[in-house]
Amino acid sequence: MSTKTAKKNQRYDEYWKLTVEYTDIYGSKFNNTLRLIVDFIDENSTMLDRIKYENDDDKNTFKQLYNELQKKIYSVYNKVDYGSVRKSINQFVKLGFVKPFFKGYHNIQEIIMDINKILSVCDHTLLKQDATWDEIKQLCDDAVKFGTASVCIPPSYVKQAKEYVGEKMKICTVIGFPNGYNTTAVKCFETEDAVKNGADEIDMVINIGWLKDGKYENILNEIKAVKKSCNGRVLKVIIETCLLTEDEKVKMCALVSESGADYIKTSTGFSSAGATPEDIKLFADNVADGVKIKAAGGISSLDDAEEFMRLGATRLGTSRIVKIVKNR
Amino acid sequence: MSTKTAKKNQRYDEYWKLTVEYTDIYGSKFNNTLRLIVDFIDENSTMLDRIKYENDDDKNTFKQLYNELQKKIYSVYNKVDYGSVRKSINQFVKLGFVKPFFKGYHNIQEIIMDINKILSVCDHTLLKQDATWDEIKQLCDDAVKFGTASVCIPPSYVKQAKEYVGEKMKICTVIGFPNGYNTTAVKCFETEDAVKNGADEIDMVINIGWLKDGKYENILNEIKAVKKSCNGRVLKVIIETCLLTEDEKVKMCALVSESGADYIKTSTGFSSAGATPEDIKLFADNVADGVKIKAAGGISSLDDAEEFMRLGATRLGTSRIVKIVKNR
Repeated sequence: MSTKTAKKNQRYDEYWKLTVEYTDIYGSKFNNTLRLIVDFIDENSTMLDRIKYENDDDKNTFKQLYNELQKKIYSVYNKVDYGSVRKSINQFVKLGFVKPFFKGYHNIQEIIMDINKILSVCDHTLLKQDATWDEIKQLCDDAVKFGTASVCIPPSYVKQAKEYVGEKMKICTVIGFPNGYNTTAVKCFETEDAVKNGADEIDMVINIGWLKDGKYENILNEIKAVKKSCNGRVLKVIIETCLLTEDEKVKMCALVSESGADYIKTSTGFSSAGATPEDIKLFADNVADGVKIKAAGGISSLDDAEEFMRLGATRLGTSRIVKIVKNR
Repeated sequence: MSTKTAKKNQRYDEYWKLTVEYTDIYGSKFNNTLRLIVDFIDENSTMLDRIKYENDDDKNTFKQLYNELQKKIYSVYNKVDYGSVRKSINQFVKLGFVKPFFKGYHNIQEIIMDINKILSVCDHTLLKQDATWDEIKQLCDDAVKFGTASVCIPPSYVKQAKEYVGEKMKICTVIGFPNGYNTTAVKCFETEDAVKNGADEIDMVINIGWLKDGKYENILNEIKAVKKSCNGRVLKVIIETCLLTEDEKVKMCALVSESGADYIKTSTGFSSAGATPEDIKLFADNVADGVKIKAAGGISSLDDAEEFMRLGATRLGTSRIVKIVKNR
């Protein structure tokens, strides 16, 4: 046996000790996340044959280890809580045994993120033009079930949704949406109307033409006016990053910071592109302390969500995260 | 010479007599349309060689005729009004000499439509999210120059545009645009705000979710309320045909007819598709007398424009028609 292989085997032992330790001491609580891990293990079994090993010894050891993990997890399927399995998998990753799985590695990364934490910062969103009440109701039900931060819905559904969810879920709605070129008077009226109907959070769109024309004073005054109309509710300011230059984004970080709004938000989801990691990083580098960041538009995986959160976003606008968790 | 060729020559003679007759008796008025025809003649000269002729006689005769027409039109370039050339070209088409030009034939069809008539029913439109004042100003200038029905612009530019164009051009703006899911209170307030700022025409979007949910009374009441807020101004009702079933379109024809609105309009231009000939025909078959039709979204050629008008549209929402005429 080579020194390398010996070292690896030592790590296997270390890993296995930890796995046994963690998986045996937990109770009978079953949750969705465990099912995800079991599915993952099943799906990735065939990958074992595609990995390039240094030698047959390594190959056999790895396969054996993997099969034992699989059996172990199956055996505790109904007896172990999420935390223990998460720790085992985490350890598995730390010891370097998962990287060869390529795509599988990302799946595990998704799994080991605390999904509930991701869900808790999602504004669960449905803003398509022809959304029906049945769809909005389903959105509310899912949001309550999965514990999202809010539902983000069209203004015309705010009253009905508030009556439906009561205090179980926050209602977020959109103002001057999605084009942002309504007058300030209309944006303020729409905000007051939404607050009156029960909205807890307001996502407004800036006037992008004004930004292009350098009318910064107009933009600042408009955000301040809408904030006043919010009457204490949370205000998020959508700047539609995909249409802006680097300088314009930095300028908007300053204006939003000065305005007293609570969040700066990347995108409507109706323009040419959504949130990017670069934009979240730019926001984090340029907004004042206390201004929070919402990433929105095109967030399509738990990986995306985790990356945006790691870069500084504390709210995510998305419909897909709940769908991903729901459908797995 | 074959009988066929003799017959053709007879037609050439007939054509030429008419051409001379019409082109010589008109004055010196020059207009853009004549330039289009001259350009067409230039562009299509090379096509003569690609036409398949029965024999060389035909070929030579045709070429000679074409060259004479070209020379003739050049010679009257600054002396002839549009009507005369239109008649000549029309005759040219009727006699069957243009069909072989394939694409050229369509160009001529475009040319022989009275372009000024098309322009006069266009709402010259700029509704992109980041439109600047310079772009809106240019839109207004072009609208005045080419004699369109109105400029259709974002609400936040209505006041400034009205001050800029005065009585030279009508200002049209959009309400609850483009998603239509704002509350009725907000749509009414936005309409009153637009009228106060100088809007002459109002294009509102219906609440499509309500239509899907069969809430016809809500839709009817909303249109009536907005019509009241228009305070006598023209109201067009956008139903976003691309998202509707056949039955829903027919239902909307009835509701718009009942509401007292002036126009039914196909599309916002922001959804999955724009106006289609089928929808204009459906409108024409189903709206009450006195309800006019506006086709909008994706109108990209004079051919399209002419077809929509022929099917019953009396207003066209487009930015491209002016561009086409301007750039030729």
